[in-house]
Amino acid sequence: MMGAAIPAAEPQIRLASWTSTMQRSMLRQMIAVVGRPGILSFAGGLPAPELFPAEDYAAALAEVLGRDRGALQYGPPFEPLKQHIVELMAQRGVVCRPEQIFLTTGAQQALSVLARLLLDNGGEVLLEGLVYTGIQQAIAPMRPRVLALTTDLATGVSVVEIEEYLQAGANPAFLYVIPDAHNPLGVSISPEKRESLLRLVAEHQLTVIEDDPYGLLTFGEENPPPLRAGGNDHVFYVGSFSKILAPALRLGWTIVPEHLVAKLTVVKEAGDLESSALTQRAVSAYLDSGRFPDHLQMLRAAYRERRDAMLAALEAHLPETCRWSEPQGGMFIWVELPGHIDTMDLLETAVEEEKVAFIPGQAFALPGVHAGQFMRLNYSNCCIADIQDGIERLGRVVAQAVEPVRSS
Amino acid sequence: MMGAAIPAAEPQIRLASWTSTMQRSMLRQMIAVVGRPGILSFAGGLPAPELFPAEDYAAALAEVLGRDRGALQYGPPFEPLKQHIVELMAQRGVVCRPEQIFLTTGAQQALSVLARLLLDNGGEVLLEGLVYTGIQQAIAPMRPRVLALTTDLATGVSVVEIEEYLQAGANPAFLYVIPDAHNPLGVSISPEKRESLLRLVAEHQLTVIEDDPYGLLTFGEENPPPLRAGGNDHVFYVGSFSKILAPALRLGWTIVPEHLVAKLTVVKEAGDLESSALTQRAVSAYLDSGRFPDHLQMLRAAYRERRDAMLAALEAHLPETCRWSEPQGGMFIWVELPGHIDTMDLLETAVEEEKVAFIPGQAFALPGVHAGQFMRLNYSNCCIADIQDGIERLGRVVAQAVEPVRSS
Repeated sequence: MMGAAIPAAEPQIRLASWTSTMQRSMLRQMIAVVGRPGILSFAGGLPAPELFPAEDYAAALAEVLGRDRGALQYGPPFEPLKQHIVELMAQRGVVCRPEQIFLTTGAQQALSVLARLLLDNGGEVLLEGLVYTGIQQAIAPMRPRVLALTTDLATGVSVVEIEEYLQAGANPAFLYVIPDAHNPLGVSISPEKRESLLRLVAEHQLTVIEDDPYGLLTFGEENPPPLRAGGNDHVFYVGSFSKILAPALRLGWTIVPEHLVAKLTVVKEAGDLESSALTQRAVSAYLDSGRFPDHLQMLRAAYRERRDAMLAALEAHLPETCRWSEPQGGMFIWVELPGHIDTMDLLETAVEEEKVAFIPGQAFALPGVHAGQFMRLNYSNCCIADIQDGIERLGRVVAQAVEPVRSS
Repeated sequence: MMGAAIPAAEPQIRLASWTSTMQRSMLRQMIAVVGRPGILSFAGGLPAPELFPAEDYAAALAEVLGRDRGALQYGPPFEPLKQHIVELMAQRGVVCRPEQIFLTTGAQQALSVLARLLLDNGGEVLLEGLVYTGIQQAIAPMRPRVLALTTDLATGVSVVEIEEYLQAGANPAFLYVIPDAHNPLGVSISPEKRESLLRLVAEHQLTVIEDDPYGLLTFGEENPPPLRAGGNDHVFYVGSFSKILAPALRLGWTIVPEHLVAKLTVVKEAGDLESSALTQRAVSAYLDSGRFPDHLQMLRAAYRERRDAMLAALEAHLPETCRWSEPQGGMFIWVELPGHIDTMDLLETAVEEEKVAFIPGQAFALPGVHAGQFMRLNYSNCCIADIQDGIERLGRVVAQAVEPVRSS
C-alpha cells in the first residue's frame, strides 16, 4: 500500500561526546562559498598550479613504476627520501640525521600525530589568537585549555606573553608557531624574538611545534634560521612538500628526537598505517634528478613578483587608514582596516558588488578572540593582472566602508 | 678541550599520559624480525606485487597528469571516483549513493576516523579476542573497555555472546567485524549469523564497523552479501583499494549516513586535510579504462590457486592433531596446534632449523586472551613451489613439537 512519501528520519547513531562541540572550519566553508565562477578570489590558500612540476613528476612516477613494481607495495619509510630531506634542512641551517626524520602524510598529519603524542585530554597549549586553522583542528579532540597569545605584525608572536604564562605556572604541552611567512598573518618572527624564544625553550623545557611550510619559499637573500637550527630537541620542526612541490603529494615530515620515532610510528599507524611508498619513491626520484633547485628559484621569483604586485596595489588602492603585513615569503598578506569595519559584512559587499573575495580575519581567530577588522589576502594563486584588477576593486569596497559618506 | 665521549642524554620531553601504555604492535615487530633474506616467510600480510597492475596504473597517472595539472592541487573529494565505488559496492550487493561514500587515506584511516567519531574516552567496544591489529591501534588513544568475543573457525564471531553483553547492559560504541576472509582467522561469517547480527543491529541500535578489505577477493561463485547490504545505517562499511589494486595508493572508503559526512570531514581534516587528489583521479582513470574486471578475475584465480596449494600442503604435512580454517577468500589461513605447543617458541625453531616463518597467534590477541597454540599463515605473497616447500618444512617443525619423543 502506497502512503504519502515520508522523509526518512536520520538514523539515531550515538557519537563520541566531543563531536557535539565540533565545528566545520569557517575557513573551509567560506572558501567553498566564494569559490564561484566569476569571482576573483584572494580567499584560498592554494599554490599556483601552473607552477607545479607536473611533467618532471610524471617522469619520476613513470621511472619508479617502470623499474620497481614493489613501489606499489606496503613498505617501511624510504631512506633515500630522508637523506634528501636532511639536505633540504641544511639549506634552512638545520643540522639533523635521517634517523630524526619522521615522514608524514602531509604536514597536517605531523601536527596531528605530534598533538596526539604530546597533549593530554584537557591539557594546555600555547597558541596565537590568530592561527592556522589546521592546528586548531588537530588539538580539538583533546579539548585543551588554550592559552592565547598576541602577535605583532612586524616581529611576530609575543614572547613576553609566553614568559608571563610560564611564570604564572602554566604547563603547556607545547607552543605552536610558524616562524616564517605566518599563515594567516604573513609575518616572520624577528631574529631577536627567535633568540628570546630559544632561551625560554632551554630554561623552561618548553616544547615547541615549529610549522615551517614556507621556510624554503622566502624572498630575501638572507633569512633567519628556524628555531630548530638551535639544536634543541624540544623543538619539533614540521616541513612539507605541499608548497614547494605540490599538495597532492600529501607528503611532509617532522624532525624529532630519535627515541620518539617508535612512539610516533605507533600513532601514525593508527591513523593511516604508512604514507604511500610510491609517492615517497617518486618524490625521491624527482629530487635525484637535480631539477629541484631551479624549480625552487623559479617559485620564489614568481611568488615574490606576485607579492610585490599586491603590495603595490594595496598602496595604490587602499585608504591610508589601512595597514598590512609585508611578508618575506609564503602566500599571504594580512590587512587591518579601521576598527569599526566588520570584514564579514564587507565580504558580502565585495562579492556582490565587485566580484572579489578574501577571507575575513575571524576565520582564523580562537574562540573569544575578536578579529572583525582584519582580512587575509592570498597572492600565490593569481596572475599579476588579476592581482592589480582585484585589489583595485577591493579598494573601492573598502573605501566605501571606511568613509561611507564621502564616497557615496 | 676534548673529554671522554659522553653519550647524549635523551631530552626530557613530557608526553601525553596515554603514551605510557602504548605498545609497538607485536605483529609489526615480528614481521620485521623474520623478514630476513633466506627465510621463506608466511608471516607478512602482503598482496603479491607481481600481480599489481603497474603498467596500467602508470598509464592512468600519465593520462591524468598530462591533461590536468590541477590534479596536483588541493581539492575536494573526486566525485567520479565515488561513482565507481558505488558500482563496486553493487557487486557486493550493497546499494548506496555517492553522497554516502566518504573517501579515506586507506581503510586504516576509515577505522581511525570512525573510532574517533563514535568512541568516547573510556567507552566500550565489542571486539573478537583475535582481531586485526589495526583496529586495536585505532581505538588505543581512547583507552576503551574492550568486551571480548570468541570466534568459531567455521562460522565466525559468536553472535550469542554479543547478545549476552547487550542484555547484561553493555553499551558499546560499536562492534568491529570482518565479514569475509577474516584477518587473521581466515573465516567468513555464516549466512545464519549475518542474519542474527542484523537482527541485533535493528533491535539494539548496535553500531557496527564492517571492515571488508577482502570482500571482492573471494573464491566461490556465490558469497553472502556484507551486513551493509541489509540497508541499516548503523552498519559503517569500510572498503579498500589496497588488496584489489595496490597498497601504495593509500585509498579506501567508508559508507556512512549522509548527515555524518560533514563531521567525518572535520575529523579527517584534522588528520591529513584530504586524500591525494592525484591518486583519486588516477584510480578513477584506471577504473574508467575498463580493465579492472579482468584484473580482479585474475587476482581471484591466482589467490585461489595459492590457497588450494597451501591447504593441500597442510593436509599432506601437518600432523592429524592440527586443524585450520579454510578461507573462502583473502590471504590468510589460521592453524590450531595441540594446546601444549607455544607458537612463539615454535617460531624460533622454525626460523633457526627450517628457515621458515609464520606469525604466532598471540600477535593478534587482545590483552588477557591466550592464543599460544595458533599461527597465522599468509599465502598471497608466495609462489606455489614456495608454498609447497615451506609448508613441508613447517610440517617437520610442527611434527617435532607435537610428538618430540617419536620424532626424535
